[in-house]
Formats: sequence, C-alpha cells, structure tokens
Amino acid sequence: MEQTRNIANTGLRGVTIASTRISDVDGKAGRLIYRGYPAKDLAGKATFEETAFLLLYEKLPDAGELEGFSRRLHREHALPPDMLAALKTRPAAAQPMDILQSAVCMLAHHDPNVGDGSREAALNMGIRLIAAFPTVVAGWDRIRRGQAPLPPDPELGHAANFLYMLSGRRPDSETARFFDTCLVLHAEHAFNASTFAAREVASTQAHMYAAVAAGVGSLSGALHGGANTRVMKMLEQIARPENVDAYVNQTLAAGGKIMGLGHAVYQTDDPRAHILAPMSKTMGERLGDTRWYDLSRDLEKKAKAAFLTQKGREIYVNVDFYSASLYHYMGIPTDLFTPVFAVARIAGWAAHVLEEQFAEAAPKPALYRPESDYIGEYCGPAECDFIPMDQR
Amino acid sequence: MEQTRNIANTGLRGVTIASTRISDVDGKAGRLIYRGYPAKDLAGKATFEETAFLLLYEKLPDAGELEGFSRRLHREHALPPDMLAALKTRPAAAQPMDILQSAVCMLAHHDPNVGDGSREAALNMGIRLIAAFPTVVAGWDRIRRGQAPLPPDPELGHAANFLYMLSGRRPDSETARFFDTCLVLHAEHAFNASTFAAREVASTQAHMYAAVAAGVGSLSGALHGGANTRVMKMLEQIARPENVDAYVNQTLAAGGKIMGLGHAVYQTDDPRAHILAPMSKTMGERLGDTRWYDLSRDLEKKAKAAFLTQKGREIYVNVDFYSASLYHYMGIPTDLFTPVFAVARIAGWAAHVLEEQFAEAAPKPALYRPESDYIGEYCGPAECDFIPMDQR
Repeated sequence: MEQTRNIANTGLRGVTIASTRISDVDGKAGRLIYRGYPAKDLAGKATFEETAFLLLYEKLPDAGELEGFSRRLHREHALPPDMLAALKTRPAAAQPMDILQSAVCMLAHHDPNVGDGSREAALNMGIRLIAAFPTVVAGWDRIRRGQAPLPPDPELGHAANFLYMLSGRRPDSETARFFDTCLVLHAEHAFNASTFAAREVASTQAHMYAAVAAGVGSLSGALHGGANTRVMKMLEQIARPENVDAYVNQTLAAGGKIMGLGHAVYQTDDPRAHILAPMSKTMGERLGDTRWYDLSRDLEKKAKAAFLTQKGREIYVNVDFYSASLYHYMGIPTDLFTPVFAVARIAGWAAHVLEEQFAEAAPKPALYRPESDYIGEYCGPAECDFIPMDQR
Repeated sequence: MEQTRNIANTGLRGVTIASTRISDVDGKAGRLIYRGYPAKDLAGKATFEETAFLLLYEKLPDAGELEGFSRRLHREHALPPDMLAALKTRPAAAQPMDILQSAVCMLAHHDPNVGDGSREAALNMGIRLIAAFPTVVAGWDRIRRGQAPLPPDPELGHAANFLYMLSGRRPDSETARFFDTCLVLHAEHAFNASTFAAREVASTQAHMYAAVAAGVGSLSGALHGGANTRVMKMLEQIARPENVDAYVNQTLAAGGKIMGLGHAVYQTDDPRAHILAPMSKTMGERLGDTRWYDLSRDLEKKAKAAFLTQKGREIYVNVDFYSASLYHYMGIPTDLFTPVFAVARIAGWAAHVLEEQFAEAAPKPALYRPESDYIGEYCGPAECDFIPMDQR
C-alpha cells in the first residue's frame, strides 16, 4: 500500500476497508451469506432468534441454546420504567426513527455494563438492544396514539411479539412467519452505510449503545433505510394501475429515481426481493386486496423495460421494493417501515460492533481516521492574515 | 482509480476520502487552518462565536453579523420544557456523553426543520445545536446534582455563559477568555473520527441531529474525545512529582499508553497544546495551585525523553494533554471534559454536515458505502448447507 491514496468524494465505493467474518454480499451473483449460510436458506427455515444467535455466536443454536437465547430476549424485552417516562415526554409528531435513536442512547443510561470494556459486556449490551428494539418501536407507536404500551407476551416469538405489541392482537401463524422471514432477511448486510457508521463509532472504543445510535441515525437517511417508507408513499401516489406508465416515464424524463430500484452493490435483482415478493402476493390474496402487490409487480416490469429502452441499462429491484406492500398488508404504519428495518438490523449491528472491538484474528481493525484534501483556498494557497474586527 | 482497492483494517489511515473547504491539518508542520485562518491566530483574538460563524459562513463576521449571530445563539440557548422533563427522568449516574448523545437525538423531536431537506433548514438545525450544547451539558450537571438548571445570562458571551450555567457564578474575565480560547481551539479538526462519523451519517441524507448524534457517540470513545478525561485521571493517579519517573517507566515497560501523548495525524507537538499549556500555567498561578500544571510539564519532559531513549522515537503532546489541568483549574468536573470538547466541536460538525449534504463545487460527496472482504470460511470456501434443528 502506498502511503497516501486519493479517492476523494467517491463514498469509498469499490474500496475494501475491512475484513469481516459476518457476512458476504456478492453483488454480481446476487448472493447474500450470513456466517457461511445463504440468507435465502435461512429465510423460512430459521427464526429471527436463530439468525441473531448465528450472527452473534457464529453457529446455529441447538435446541437448548435457542431456548436459552429466546428466554433471555424475553427477559430483556421490558423497558425500565424511567425509559417509558422519558418516551412519554416526547412530542407525538416526532419521527419514529428519531425516537428510536434517542431511545438507544437512553438505554445506555440504565445499563450496568456501560463503562465495562469487556467483550462479555458488549455482548450483553447487544443482546439487550436486540430485545429492546421491538418494545421501543411498538411502545412508541402506542404512546404517540395516547395508548399504554403493551407488555410483551412471553408465549410469542420475537416477530409475533412485535406485531402483538403494535396492534394488541396476536398475529395468525402465517403472518407471524412471514414477518419473521422479513426480520431474517433484513438482519445483516455487510458494510452498508449504517453498519459502517456503527463500526466507525465503535472503533473509538465507544460503547455498543453509542455505536448503534449512529447506525440508527444512518439508517434513517432517505438514501438508506428511509427508502422502504418512500416506496410505500410512491405506491400510494401512483395509486392505480393506469398511472404506472405515466409515473415511470415522467420520473425518468425528470432524471428522478424510482424508489426501491437500484442498489449500491447488487448488479442483479436483490436476492431478498425474490422472497419478499411472493409473501406480499400471498398476504394480498388472503386479505382480498392485491392492489399494492399488483401495482408493485407492474411498476417493476414497466420500470425495468423503460430503463432498458430509455437508458440502455438494466435496473434491479432491491430489498425495499416488496417489503413496502408486505409491511402495509401486515398493518404496520408506513412511518414504522424504517424502524422495523432497524428491529431486524440491530442483530447485524451488534455483531459488527463486537467484531470491530474484539476481533481475535489479526489484522485487528484500527480507529477510523481518514485524510481529507483541503481545497479551501480562501486567500489563495497562502494562509489568511487575521483581520481585526474594525477592519472587516 | 482501479475498480477495487484493498486497504482492509488500516482504519483508512493515509487515505484521502474527501475534499473539504473547512479545515486543513498539516501533521508534519503542526499547522491547523480553519477556512484559511490559522487556529493559533484565531485563539485569543476571535471569540468562539466568531469562529463558529467563520466555520458556518466561510468568513469572519463584521460587527453587525456577529451581533446578529450572538443574539441568535442566545435566543436558541433555552431548551424546550419537555426536554428538561426528559432529562429529569435520566439516572444521575449516567455518563454525561451518553446524556449529551440522547439530548441531541431528542432535540430533533422539537425542531420544526426536521423533515425539511433544504440547506437553510440544516443550517438552522446546526445553529440550534451550537446554542443548545452548553445548556444541555451545564443543565445536566445541575440536574444530576439535584439542582435546577440555570437559565442563560443574556449579557454573557458563549464561553462565559457555559461556566455561569455550570457553577452559578459569572467567571472573571480572564477565565472566560481562556475558556473561550479553549472552545476556539477545539472547534474543528478535519476528518477525525467523530467528524467522519457525522459526515458518514449525513451522507445518507439523514438530518443534522441524527448525524451530530453519531459525532457525539464517536467523540465519547476512549481513543478520541474520551482522552482528555483520562489525562486528568492519570494526573490524579500520579499525584506527586516524585511518582512521575516510575509512572513513565512502568507504563512504557508494560507497553501502555501515556494519555495525551501521540496523535493519529501530528508528527510534531499539537499546535493547540502550545497555547493551552501557558493558560494552564497562568490559571494555576492565579489559584496558587500549580501542582497539576507542574506535574503535566514534568510528565511531558520525562515521557518525551523516555520515548527517545527506550523506543528510539519522538513522541508529542496532543490537544488533550494540557486541556485537562486547564479545565480542572476552571472548576469543570472531570467527567465533563469530553462534553466540553463537544460544546466546541459542534461548530465543526455542523459545518461538515452542511458540506457533506450541500457542497456546491463538484465533485459532490457520495453516500459512504465501502466494501469488505469476507473471510468467514465457516464451511471452507463453499456455502454452508442449512442444518435442521434436530440435526444440530
């Protein structure tokens, strides 16, 4: 490696900045691997709890390990009473991702492991966050509607429990299974922007909560996790099948983006989209309302064709494209789509913070401290002379 | 640029990832420039308010602009009543940096500009954060001691106001001026870990608060802003001049670090340390207690000599080394040293988030989305076959 490389303003695209044992995204092949296992094989076979265990402990749990881990998550679901008191002071109109980011920071105030720099302490904090995310997201949705948060139901799995705490109704088993699969598919995705932000903060030896809060902040951005909410808003704007053609043509003519299409890494369809789409179809059929699924499918087909003829290139659906209609069918409010993404991704973030701070294999990760190229020639190439106030 | 570069696990050291007009750190020459002006020329001549204005607006303010900007900061100092209510729910033992990070997130809930993607909205949010940081840090210190937060004093400048809100006493003019100089010297430092974290989050189009919260989280790490607190704890541990030799020798023999020495970028004394040291000396003399300054000076001399003879290389003091004793003389509690760093650095973070999202000159910054190298050969180079639960 040369001493200095200049790759300014490329967003580190195509630059390999770290080695990781957690996941592999092969953008060309459309392949996503969690700790050796294809995500598509885990989807529908392993629960979110098994997947989170795999990400944290590097192996699929046996029955006893899974039971212990699930019990642990249940124990950690409930929030400290002072956390609920703090959430109740928050304005109802606050953006749910902003609430989640503040809640992550506040959970640190209650954790006895903060200040303990051991791997065990970090793992404890990570597990507590995995447990707390659904409680915070569902609890906040009820608080902002003037309802009391619901205590978790100890008989339900992680996915079903979230839907229960959100609506007050136990989901049917297929809905619960589909939502579980969504969580599995969103649990991890290598060095995307939010994971990178969490690792960057962790590289300073800041604790798990401080790092995960950065991940939540990053995920809230419209170019990252905010996209799934925007897919739903786009579908609602298009509203009817006869509007699809005009929407595609007008958006492309204006140089705009069609939400849920295109990805920084995949050069083919996102493998997760192929699992999400049929679930959306099934949910729509069960509810007797396939409108949002049909609109999505039609939009995908026409947008792909328009890209090819008008721009001469292929475009692919990403994970956000079909999760939007699917979450909608599950009764999840549109502005909770991105928090739901976080409810899944916290498993990956926790694993990455652990790897950043405690990777055993050399070379160990180092504090992120890049260089920048100063182009502020305010006084030409020379320094500016200080100008006293009376001469300005 | 090649398509893919592998610089894994180097923490991006020596890699120029962005161009910036905000500041220049010349590590070889020990030179730090804010928007054209050497920080050492601003120190003692320009106030923090002038420096923050320079960072945000790319010019030193004239008298009218400075008055308007200062009035604006005063107007934005006070926290919404619901913010104080939320802070009052927080456990007194919480780490002040964790409180600050949560407060940054919560301030988003009250800001009408959240959701407005314009540059003007981002600038408003940045100015509100610059104004709010001292109120949060000083207010929390009083809340955790069971005292009511003090309203800001409209007749005091930014630096003096912080010391007033912390202690309830107006500082004398020299102390206020020294603290103001500390804020100027800590206001900005290019792509350090916290600024990079804030920019990384901002690159997703997340808003100013979400990005700044990542900066606060990163600054809280022991390898970054947490170092100034650790310098003071080290001085307290050494306690007496006769212990300095033993401390230096034992620390070096054990392969440990002497806090406040060494820097990721500077290959000479940190230019800020040369301004902070004499202020620490003067404050110690005025208080009739030069013990902490003397101990620092002695430790610097002996550690530098020991590094040269035992490790064959030079070591240099960084910004944290003399700020510790100086803040201590100013009556600032040790665990607020890092939050005080943030009270200054928020000016730089705000400027960087604005540049990340609204830089007018091409090339514009891009979403940070690096690659990673998957080394998790759990089933050799092949994918693992899914193992059903009953076969695990």
